[in-house]
Amino acid sequence: MERSQIINLAAGPSSLPLEVLQEATAGLLNYEGTGIGLTELSHRSQEFQNLTNSLEKSIRDILNVPATHTILFTQGGGCGQFSAVVFNLLARHHLLYPELKPEERVMDYVVTGSWSKKAAEEARKLGGGLVNIVTDGREHSPSGKAFDRIPPHMSWEFSHAPAFIYYCDNETVDGVQFSHTPNSQTAFPFHLLPQSTGLAPIPLVADFSSSFLSRPIPNIEQYGLIYAGAQKNVGPSGLTILIVRKDLLVDTDAAAKLGAAPTPTTYSYKVLADAGSLYNTPPMFSMYVSYLVVKHFASQGGLTMLEERNREKQALVYGAVDEGVEKGLFVGKVEKESRSWMNVTFTVVDAEAEKRFIAKATEKGLRGVKGHR
Amino acid sequence: MERSQIINLAAGPSSLPLEVLQEATAGLLNYEGTGIGLTELSHRSQEFQNLTNSLEKSIRDILNVPATHTILFTQGGGCGQFSAVVFNLLARHHLLYPELKPEERVMDYVVTGSWSKKAAEEARKLGGGLVNIVTDGREHSPSGKAFDRIPPHMSWEFSHAPAFIYYCDNETVDGVQFSHTPNSQTAFPFHLLPQSTGLAPIPLVADFSSSFLSRPIPNIEQYGLIYAGAQKNVGPSGLTILIVRKDLLVDTDAAAKLGAAPTPTTYSYKVLADAGSLYNTPPMFSMYVSYLVVKHFASQGGLTMLEERNREKQALVYGAVDEGVEKGLFVGKVEKESRSWMNVTFTVVDAEAEKRFIAKATEKGLRGVKGHR
Repeated sequence: MERSQIINLAAGPSSLPLEVLQEATAGLLNYEGTGIGLTELSHRSQEFQNLTNSLEKSIRDILNVPATHTILFTQGGGCGQFSAVVFNLLARHHLLYPELKPEERVMDYVVTGSWSKKAAEEARKLGGGLVNIVTDGREHSPSGKAFDRIPPHMSWEFSHAPAFIYYCDNETVDGVQFSHTPNSQTAFPFHLLPQSTGLAPIPLVADFSSSFLSRPIPNIEQYGLIYAGAQKNVGPSGLTILIVRKDLLVDTDAAAKLGAAPTPTTYSYKVLADAGSLYNTPPMFSMYVSYLVVKHFASQGGLTMLEERNREKQALVYGAVDEGVEKGLFVGKVEKESRSWMNVTFTVVDAEAEKRFIAKATEKGLRGVKGHR
Repeated sequence: MERSQIINLAAGPSSLPLEVLQEATAGLLNYEGTGIGLTELSHRSQEFQNLTNSLEKSIRDILNVPATHTILFTQGGGCGQFSAVVFNLLARHHLLYPELKPEERVMDYVVTGSWSKKAAEEARKLGGGLVNIVTDGREHSPSGKAFDRIPPHMSWEFSHAPAFIYYCDNETVDGVQFSHTPNSQTAFPFHLLPQSTGLAPIPLVADFSSSFLSRPIPNIEQYGLIYAGAQKNVGPSGLTILIVRKDLLVDTDAAAKLGAAPTPTTYSYKVLADAGSLYNTPPMFSMYVSYLVVKHFASQGGLTMLEERNREKQALVYGAVDEGVEKGLFVGKVEKESRSWMNVTFTVVDAEAEKRFIAKATEKGLRGVKGHR
């Protein structure tokens, strides 16, 4: 089939604008007149240094990232960050409070779906502190078992002084997403956060992997760390983008001497920052395409415009789903106010009909339908 | 400039065959007639599963990887593996010998240049065992400070029963490489290796990042683990290829319960293997290009043919260097028998002349000269 005949709905790596792909393919053969393809350049060349700076600046501009935060590029994806967050932020906690026992170092996890659940499990496995589940979305669902909503704020229980607070903005598997509507019951409750442990602010960590650059991030200055795998909205898989408040760039080796678990070197945010994201060879092609995509978004009016367009799409798609639910064809999975913008989840009542639908859809050029629960 | 006007000598990410790049750019827009670009496909789609299998098979065929070994694809590069090796192989050691103290778990490092030195430092930092330096190339150089040769075998001191033995086939920064000539003093001394700890064979680990697929790997069945970042000879940066003997795929979580340091999940070889390298989104585009490159190498006669061609190039380039050394223009850095095939290192005697040379070379289309020490 030709590209023009296809509509790609995949929730994993997803669609890139055609003009971006065309520019990327040109750069793959001959990057900006150097006569060398982008991935064949040295990552220590001036050209690639410039590209890294341009990507950094484009993300800073489009998201209004304040000067208090640095932007880093690395590998390993969201799952890599599940581990890196624990190493770096427990190291910071050791440097701030060297005298505490492991059971006095608490990590607060807000669990609203499969990905935040997995992140909390990784923290529990790596140890060095206790995991406190601030809220578990399943306990608030009718069945007691499904992630189907942002739990009501009044049920959340933060620790008094956690090493960090963690949540996931959009849960792809479950289709549950925080809203960005101020004062809404489904927005992230910034006003409830414990603010400081006395010596330093408590870092708020957010996984934005599947919603990064789909709309502005309100209160961005209040985050300690935002991270995102590029592959959902920005570029080809392999690139992880970190937005880190500078007080989180701590000497992990010094912390290890105080009893923190030694941080694997490529996980250390400070090592990455000190090397300008070039501690080891970065995923150059993913960075290049990501830069082209961000530039493309900016030329289209930036994230406010993108938010509007996504809102229109959302209304259309959920309109159709609601109609299907009314007619008894679908079962909606997620409470309306907590529904994801990024990925729409519902179950087809008749399993055989679902199979026929997917086969027909593929034949007609509708790809990536399966796995949309 | 056009591609045809450029000769790229970069030792970092390096040149890819033009026909491969052209096929890759086509696949980026429309992968094998699906109407979707490769990086836009779901990594869980049948098409990408097939590609992963094809890449696995092509590497297995071209390197004669035996059925005792599995081939895995991951992110994080060589530096990521510096850490992953320690986590996985100390975990294995804990499962085999749960009763030992940390100081009784020894990791043997053969240090012949900057990269193996860095790997040994990472092992020392992560702890959980002692690092034994089997040999340090610097101690055998005239100055006592330079990595300039494979040290004579009779000076190597392996531990009696290490958790693993580690070396780097080719040291890019220093230009020191093991030869593949049987019984040579600069080949890796398989005949000297301690063979077994009683319960299990001792894993031999080798970093082949910069020499992977430049020639066959003799005695491949004797390795526990071979790893390589793709970016030197195979494909765009972001992909790490692992060839792992199956007894090294151990349950790292079970080992943590016995006192081993908990392994970050994305580092666990068993987790990767159980998920068929799809535990998280893999670097899809790098895998695609790598597959095209390996297929290209195979169509050119495989690694024996490539070895011959590389030998001819080596003779030409080192001939010119030797001439320069004779004329007093260059200082050769590495003892002849230990010289790298992959990257040629020498110093220009007159520093000003070196600057002029690099400027002129760039103007004429010779790129990637600087940094070649």
